[in-house]
Amino acid sequence: MKVAELQLQLHLQQHKHHREREETQLCRKLRMGVADLSLPISSAVDVCDKVEGEDLFVPPLNFAMVDNGIFRSGFPEPANFAFLQTLGLRSIIYLCPEPYPDTNMEFLKSNGIKLYQFGIEGHKEPFVNIPDDAIREALKILLDVRNHPVLIHCKRGKHRTGCLVGCLRKLQKWCLSSVFDEYQRFAAAKARVSDQRFVELFDISSLKHLPIPFSSSKR
Amino acid sequence: MKVAELQLQLHLQQHKHHREREETQLCRKLRMGVADLSLPISSAVDVCDKVEGEDLFVPPLNFAMVDNGIFRSGFPEPANFAFLQTLGLRSIIYLCPEPYPDTNMEFLKSNGIKLYQFGIEGHKEPFVNIPDDAIREALKILLDVRNHPVLIHCKRGKHRTGCLVGCLRKLQKWCLSSVFDEYQRFAAAKARVSDQRFVELFDISSLKHLPIPFSSSKR
Repeated sequence: MKVAELQLQLHLQQHKHHREREETQLCRKLRMGVADLSLPISSAVDVCDKVEGEDLFVPPLNFAMVDNGIFRSGFPEPANFAFLQTLGLRSIIYLCPEPYPDTNMEFLKSNGIKLYQFGIEGHKEPFVNIPDDAIREALKILLDVRNHPVLIHCKRGKHRTGCLVGCLRKLQKWCLSSVFDEYQRFAAAKARVSDQRFVELFDISSLKHLPIPFSSSKR
Repeated sequence: MKVAELQLQLHLQQHKHHREREETQLCRKLRMGVADLSLPISSAVDVCDKVEGEDLFVPPLNFAMVDNGIFRSGFPEPANFAFLQTLGLRSIIYLCPEPYPDTNMEFLKSNGIKLYQFGIEGHKEPFVNIPDDAIREALKILLDVRNHPVLIHCKRGKHRTGCLVGCLRKLQKWCLSSVFDEYQRFAAAKARVSDQRFVELFDISSLKHLPIPFSSSKR
């Protein structure tokens, strides 16, 4: 009985923060309604278990795997925490100057995840100015496998995250057209020539001595 | 001296097939010109080694990592072979009915990569008909870690590949809005409601007993 109550509480809490994804939302609300009104708690949980779509994960906006042990996304909200737990993250590289929200800090603490913050301003074109040194320091953290699995994120996972991943791809010796193709896939209509120019001009020679985590997943 | 000649031959061969990426192309041609006309072979190779951008990898169109040991892309061409070698692939899941080209078959043979072909026709809307059974069989191959690292591809890595990855995400318990978000990132302007409806209706209950490779990369 206690487990059932806890499960329901968890459901309700997940609910509170989960505003954006109306589709899943609606589906859960419907089930909640059934559970609350017409059945005792234990049976309600039974119903939940049988309903297709139970315990669905909600990856953060623009989430993707970059390489072994490296992920990227937009800003994670509490609805994403259950999913993020499945990644077993060791660290997060956060690319905005704004302080990390308390709820996110609590999630990090309770999961032993280290936060590396590089406060890059989110200017809009034509005033974009990605600081070379911040990206360079972030790259060193990113390349250090002791920090893996690591999640890189900014606000929407498009520009600042796109620049950092772009520089990683250069280190991985991807040709520029492929680097830009990937950048544009995430930035879509918001793609910026200035970001792509930054990646093109970024000098990787001082980082070449670092061991580069490779896509290779040979077993 | 022999090594240098082989390296040049390799360059020339890579060239022959590498038509799409003009940017990299142009850069290589320029270097080739220098190598062929003004320097003896050994010095030419020296020059190549020093030029930034040497030995750049060209991932296939729409290439991305899906999860540990799982990759997706459009149709790989010879220009992509050097990159694909870094993935250490064990198998390829090919989702088109057309026979695999000889050059690609040779690449597979010389790298010990197994080909699993599921001939799904590439119909256009409103005549799209993704065969449920082919996707189901492909999923079983995809979930079998003995086949990893595995590359899924069709022609452009948008529709057929998008459907298979979408069904994998359902098995990984992603909510539908996130599954569709990922589908749309690769299909972009070519996104099809019919593909997304297929993924939504795809019944995963018969596959739930299979072990699901998870994003978790805990060390």
